[in-house]
Amino acid sequence: MPLWAIHHTPGFFTDEDKRDLAARITDHYERAGLPRFYVVVIFDEIRSENLYVGGEPTSVGLRVVIDHIARHAPDKQRRNGIAHWIKSILQPYLEGKDNLHWEFHVDETSEDLWMINGLIPPPMGSDAEKRWVAQNAVSAY
Amino acid sequence: MPLWAIHHTPGFFTDEDKRDLAARITDHYERAGLPRFYVVVIFDEIRSENLYVGGEPTSVGLRVVIDHIARHAPDKQRRNGIAHWIKSILQPYLEGKDNLHWEFHVDETSEDLWMINGLIPPPMGSDAEKRWVAQNAVSAY
Amino acid sequence: MPLWAIHHTPGFFTDEDKRDLAARITDHYERAGLPRFYVVVIFDEIRSENLYVGGEPTSVGLRVVIDHIARHAPDKQRRNGIAHWIKSILQPYLEGKDNLHWEFHVDETSEDLWMINGLIPPPMGSDAEKRWVAQNAVSAY
Repeated sequence: MPLWAIHHTPGFFTDEDKRDLAARITDHYERAGLPRFYVVVIFDEIRSENLYVGGEPTSVGLRVVIDHIARHAPDKQRRNGIAHWIKSILQPYLEGKDNLHWEFHVDETSEDLWMINGLIPPPMGSDAEKRWVAQNAVSAY
Repeated sequence: MPLWAIHHTPGFFTDEDKRDLAARITDHYERAGLPRFYVVVIFDEIRSENLYVGGEPTSVGLRVVIDHIARHAPDKQRRNGIAHWIKSILQPYLEGKDNLHWEFHVDETSEDLWMINGLIPPPMGSDAEKRWVAQNAVSAY
Repeated sequence: MPLWAIHHTPGFFTDEDKRDLAARITDHYERAGLPRFYVVVIFDEIRSENLYVGGEPTSVGLRVVIDHIARHAPDKQRRNGIAHWIKSILQPYLEGKDNLHWEFHVDETSEDLWMINGLIPPPMGSDAEKRWVAQNAVSAY
């Protein structure tokens, strides 16, 4: 469910950074109660001449687009809390980068229009969801 | 209107698979009453080191992101029905792939913030929409 | 906040076109009262065999996906107005292209689930937002 599309300029992440960041993102959602395999992270390198911020080509930039499906925040305070939580995940990868534009936003979409391996995932907090967490795999329910 | 962004690992689809799947998706929407040219399908190959599921790089994976604009499902039952319908479209391309993670979700966005070839498409079920279906082309209305 | 993902077939834009279009998009949002650096434009070239319209591979096509975060249109009339406004931005780049399919849609997402350089941007019309516009930069508020 959370899908992170991480658009970045060349050299922003090493291969090791990518593995680390993907694991770190996954750890955070797991602590929030989600099965690890719900978390999908896509890295997408964009050359400077294809990325513009404020109308200017950008040599060091990070633009993250996140889709949240299984969990929706009910109010502004909770949404802002999630934004700060995402910031804390990304922060270690931003150090020492000057003149950096980094930005993210989250879209929330319907859990009814979603499938993993051919199954509509079980409701939040259900026994079936807990089993999916424990097995870290899809199973019939 | 339906926009299918199909993110996949290398070798997941042959060129012929891509043509077949794009035609198959389009056929399904046409049977639901939409002009064929409403259906746009983008294939996006992602190397294993840029795609993580559950924090692990993924060598065989499929993540489909679909935007529905012209048609919105009014209730949970109908949304689940659409999810099963999408599953049936994808199913033939998943056979024989072991340890596969495949997942899709659909976002529904406003038909008022949408244009094809400079026109806001006609309302669902209107005579103008039927003409667009019959001609498989945009025309003034 | 506005994020424009511009998917296009090879040769659709020259490098100069890209710079011009990105600046033109940014100018339009600036005139609507937004800081220039809110505007992010990503160009994404897609080869014909990876882009299908109506089930057919497409050699000249443009599919733009726009996310609006900081500003939402309150009614249908206003949303249609925005669609026409976006059309006017793209129009100069479409001249002389025969058999062209071009299409865009806009998604509107929550301003509470959004950060630039680690800050939740200030409310629409606030003094802080005006300062961000004047300085064309993020500052604490």
